[in-house]
Amino acid sequence: MTEMKFAIAGESRNATHLDVDAGRHRVVVDEPIELGGNKSAPNPFEYILAGYAGCLNAVGHIVAREMGITLHKLSIEMSGTLNSNRFLGRSFEERAGFQGIEVDLQVYSDSDSEVLARWLEVVETRCPIYDNLVNPTPVKLNVYKLESVYY
Amino acid sequence: MTEMKFAIAGESRNATHLDVDAGRHRVVVDEPIELGGNKSAPNPFEYILAGYAGCLNAVGHIVAREMGITLHKLSIEMSGTLNSNRFLGRSFEERAGFQGIEVDLQVYSDSDSEVLARWLEVVETRCPIYDNLVNPTPVKLNVYKLESVYY
Repeated sequence: MTEMKFAIAGESRNATHLDVDAGRHRVVVDEPIELGGNKSAPNPFEYILAGYAGCLNAVGHIVAREMGITLHKLSIEMSGTLNSNRFLGRSFEERAGFQGIEVDLQVYSDSDSEVLARWLEVVETRCPIYDNLVNPTPVKLNVYKLESVYY
Repeated sequence: MTEMKFAIAGESRNATHLDVDAGRHRVVVDEPIELGGNKSAPNPFEYILAGYAGCLNAVGHIVAREMGITLHKLSIEMSGTLNSNRFLGRSFEERAGFQGIEVDLQVYSDSDSEVLARWLEVVETRCPIYDNLVNPTPVKLNVYKLESVYY
């Protein structure tokens, strides 16, 4: 296992609600009331943070095992701030996305703080989602107009 | 509404399973069998793609409304490829994360293809998650060692 491919397929139900098939799992995306949604599900930003946190958990445990660190407990709090002006079309002065993301990992471990600091450094260099956030990634978008009487 | 903050809090249940609270919603992250998980939930990569797709749906509808485009139907397929060597610790030659992401939007609309191509260009410049994928974002990680007899 070296090259891996992950794929999803989404169907728009309305202007904020997307039903996503991820393998045999369903992921529902919606927006909060203040962004025009029905708050029926987490919103896109929350899924980005949740996915990144899940990645830190997985890579964190891989690296801990390699370093002989036991993680008795691991909690991950994460927040991101952004300016809504661009995506709402009000101003183009600021970037559209998160301007910064802050992550606090709380660890219960027998290892001392210096070892845990080194552990975090290694986790950073190996966490795929961290890489995709702090470094540019090529994204190619295509749009296809479908002709059909079935909508 | 200009500055917005989004936050999540996750608790590790095991080396691949993270339970995440996102406001009043729960997001469960796991890994497939081949990555050591129990395939009980979507994995981190699928959540990144699902969140990005949900963002394209929301911004897509905002921009369509502004341009007078009716989206009778919108489907979003997305895939990302990566090399697992770095996060598994086998080699450090390749980047850890997605090497590229490809997105296909299928639209049923009365608007012609040139208008839809222009729509997609505007969506790109305003989609927050697109911005975070194609441009660098500052991420700050902190680790705290907690002392407790309660684990």
